Amino acid sequence: MSNKKINNKIVSIEKNFRQICCKIKQKGREILTDFEITPPQFTALLILLEEDNLTISELSNEMYLACSTVTDLLDRMEKNALLKRVKDENDRRISRIKVLEKGYTVLDEVLTARRLYISEIFEEATPEELEIVNQSFSVLNTYF
Amino acid sequence: MSNKKINNKIVSIEKNFRQICCKIKQKGREILTDFEITPPQFTALLILLEEDNLTISELSNEMYLACSTVTDLLDRMEKNALLKRVKDENDRRISRIKVLEKGYTVLDEVLTARRLYISEIFEEATPEELEIVNQSFSVLNTYF
Repeated sequence: MSNKKINNKIVSIEKNFRQICCKIKQKGREILTDFEITPPQFTALLILLEEDNLTISELSNEMYLACSTVTDLLDRMEKNALLKRVKDENDRRISRIKVLEKGYTVLDEVLTARRLYISEIFEEATPEELEIVNQSFSVLNTYF
Repeated sequence: MSNKKINNKIVSIEKNFRQICCKIKQKGREILTDFEITPPQFTALLILLEEDNLTISELSNEMYLACSTVTDLLDRMEKNALLKRVKDENDRRISRIKVLEKGYTVLDEVLTARRLYISEIFEEATPEELEIVNQSFSVLNTYF
């Protein structure tokens, strides 16, 4: 373990991140119970929204999960008509994942519910306070 | 779904939270691979650090997990000498969870590694930037 000095500001930032991420995660799970997808299915859809037509192996890498786990996940999502696997036109041995309309719809509904939650959280916040939160994200996005 | 107007600031806050929490979660998992505990074991130790002597049912509630899942988790942690179950003195039918020295040591080491990660992330940040991040947490802790 490095002997690098950890000051109180860092201790507090780590704790704050941990607690807020935990609250958002719990709320996110709660929100998903109103929809027909699970947390890893939501994560998969988010990744596929950014980059459609991924292979199973590419999606596994991005999810930090084993290919077999992602295969099971995709089986259930395909059964639920959220996506389908399509053979690559240039190499028929490769399957690519295509999100179906229902997948986009569910993802959109879940994101809307999450935004509503955030919007309710900040209902009483002043524009100045919201500005501080946004400025903080600019800092975070520079270093993370 | 409510028709409440969701402005772009909220859309951006939800996305920023999601992405930064995701990065911290991945890094947190990476850090844990250097230690002999899993992510749910880390969560359990964090809860027990705040409130020792919980019953299995109380811990299950706080972890949003089924009692049977938490029982399995505690079995492995007890085997690993991180904690032990102790009969309640007033009601011998109830077991309470007591964190052992090794549990506190591992938790402390993991927290130190997480703080080092955060400290490295902000190595190049100016004091003003760190101040914005801390101010933002004050806002967040008011509303979350």
